[in-house]
Amino acid sequence: MKQILNSIIEPTLLLDEKRCRNNLQRMAEKAKANGIFLRPHFKTHQSKTIGDWAKDYGVNRIAVSSIRMAAYFAEAGWEDIIVAFPINTKEISRINEIASKTGLNLLLEDLESARYLEQSLTHSIGIFIEIDTGYNRTGLGLEDLDTVDELLEFVSKSSKLELKGLLAHAGHSYNVQGKNKIAEIHENSLSVFREFRLRYESAYPDLIYSAGDTPTCSTMDKFPGLTEMRPGNFVFYDLSQWAIGSCQLENIAVAMACPVVAKFPRRNEIVVYGGGVHFSKDRKPHPNGSDYYGLMVDWKNGTWSTNMDNAYIKSLSQEHGTISVSKKLMDEVKVGDILGFLPIHSCMTANLMKRYLSLDGDRISMMAYP
Amino acid sequence: MKQILNSIIEPTLLLDEKRCRNNLQRMAEKAKANGIFLRPHFKTHQSKTIGDWAKDYGVNRIAVSSIRMAAYFAEAGWEDIIVAFPINTKEISRINEIASKTGLNLLLEDLESARYLEQSLTHSIGIFIEIDTGYNRTGLGLEDLDTVDELLEFVSKSSKLELKGLLAHAGHSYNVQGKNKIAEIHENSLSVFREFRLRYESAYPDLIYSAGDTPTCSTMDKFPGLTEMRPGNFVFYDLSQWAIGSCQLENIAVAMACPVVAKFPRRNEIVVYGGGVHFSKDRKPHPNGSDYYGLMVDWKNGTWSTNMDNAYIKSLSQEHGTISVSKKLMDEVKVGDILGFLPIHSCMTANLMKRYLSLDGDRISMMAYP
Repeated sequence: MKQILNSIIEPTLLLDEKRCRNNLQRMAEKAKANGIFLRPHFKTHQSKTIGDWAKDYGVNRIAVSSIRMAAYFAEAGWEDIIVAFPINTKEISRINEIASKTGLNLLLEDLESARYLEQSLTHSIGIFIEIDTGYNRTGLGLEDLDTVDELLEFVSKSSKLELKGLLAHAGHSYNVQGKNKIAEIHENSLSVFREFRLRYESAYPDLIYSAGDTPTCSTMDKFPGLTEMRPGNFVFYDLSQWAIGSCQLENIAVAMACPVVAKFPRRNEIVVYGGGVHFSKDRKPHPNGSDYYGLMVDWKNGTWSTNMDNAYIKSLSQEHGTISVSKKLMDEVKVGDILGFLPIHSCMTANLMKRYLSLDGDRISMMAYP
Repeated sequence: MKQILNSIIEPTLLLDEKRCRNNLQRMAEKAKANGIFLRPHFKTHQSKTIGDWAKDYGVNRIAVSSIRMAAYFAEAGWEDIIVAFPINTKEISRINEIASKTGLNLLLEDLESARYLEQSLTHSIGIFIEIDTGYNRTGLGLEDLDTVDELLEFVSKSSKLELKGLLAHAGHSYNVQGKNKIAEIHENSLSVFREFRLRYESAYPDLIYSAGDTPTCSTMDKFPGLTEMRPGNFVFYDLSQWAIGSCQLENIAVAMACPVVAKFPRRNEIVVYGGGVHFSKDRKPHPNGSDYYGLMVDWKNGTWSTNMDNAYIKSLSQEHGTISVSKKLMDEVKVGDILGFLPIHSCMTANLMKRYLSLDGDRISMMAYP
């Protein structure tokens, strides 16, 4: 660990492979125990290497959040990819290119886009119809059954569109805290799936029912009626998921390492090199009442440990992070030290950092900008 | 404009060169009228091309927010660069490399770092001592005059450190609204500079006094006692600066263009391809009371126009933007249309987007990831 910390000269995203693999394994075992597939959402890590780790736990299907991300993971050999985002018809030539190489699945929620695809595709793709189980972001609800009927009929008759299933994201689970509240959202979501299944099972017996966000997949034990679960953030977790109740602090598999650049004993504050362009500006209420942007870790046993009494990031500007510390820590920490912090939202932090450093000192790459 | 919009297939950051040059020109004229230098902070645009535009208005000195950014602009030919961030001694080899090629200036606020530089530099650099005029993020205040004394003496005797001046950032101007409140911060900041000048003018008559954030530089007319002003965001402005009172909506020189991917007439919402990984999640209170993440523009006369009655981004997830729209707009907009939005915080949006598209259809590059 000392060697790793000595090598760090700028904000660096550390990845604890063991914690990450434990998160993958736990979720894979839960899926298996339920007789369903785990289709992890790779938007969180955006990395071929970490994608390969998932294969060790039997994963052979994934979700991504953009066509470009589908291209990246198709190149890495994934053969069953859902772009879990409404079809963006503007990207038809990229879609055709990926579909010519691997099993690409897109979401549909309107007939016009379905007709557009039927006309414009040069290779066949799989189709999931996006349904809304209460999040109210995208997808067709029980009020839209006529549209669902039409789409199912259109897709099942199409030569280029292969009907795969129904897909939902119960993202409103991110707005609650605690197992009971998550359970309520989970039950409501499953009950909407049941209604769809009742209506369509006889005509379309092979539909895949795909759902699952990190809070429900992490805290619930049973997923009746689903064919696959699709969590993303669980691979790393973060302080947001901890606040929701999805994980323990020790499950969080990424931490930012930042050089100390200034100390202000009069106000018990330390400034690190590490700001909004590294962490992102996602914030949460700290248990002490104020907002915070990250929680300090202690370097320990070749990794890090944390508790909520630790120092925390009280504000971020573009490159500065201001840490609120105890007087004791103020005395111990020196300019030039490397401090570590758990991020509030690991997806956003990883997206900004664009690479990882493993605790063995390996650089792990991510999808690059075009 | 129609041709530009037709070429867009994914979230794209549009740059109106005319507005941007007007912003540069207005600030350059204000500096000139005050007999002071304009040293723009290039962290906002991070682009050699836009940096070159500033030269057309007499700019020959800049500020940046990281050593890497200094290297990027040194390569573009800039010969007087301040890294307006506390010295990060971990980057000494990068510092030496840049200092061997161009005029690099760093901030100091502790003697230990000064001694480290004196020992470790292979080429001389300029030094600004960072002072705190009330923001309380970094810098030495009037309570720290002993340290300032020591630093000034150390630097002026050093063979490798060239004493340049005192520098402050009154970033608390970002937390207020309206000219009167900004004026108060401006006066307080200038009065702290006056105290420093009184103390040090006779011993160090050639000190540069550098200050100036976008709110004060945009709204104040006089800068007595300063040698240079150092705003950054003004080159683009954004909805945050509009809310503070630094600019009009029509001064904002960047807008995001995003494809419409889904429509939800029942709740008067449109979903675009454009999320937190494009806009950043910075948000502000909308005049109507709710938070918002961006304001919709109308495409007009080869650029865009806006007013606060326009539709706005009500929420962002990783790649989705949800737009709250009127019933009329709901009927007009089609899936596949390109909608435009002013960003809440242009520095963060530009940092995520990593390139611009001019209204003439030119791709304008930015500093890349390492």
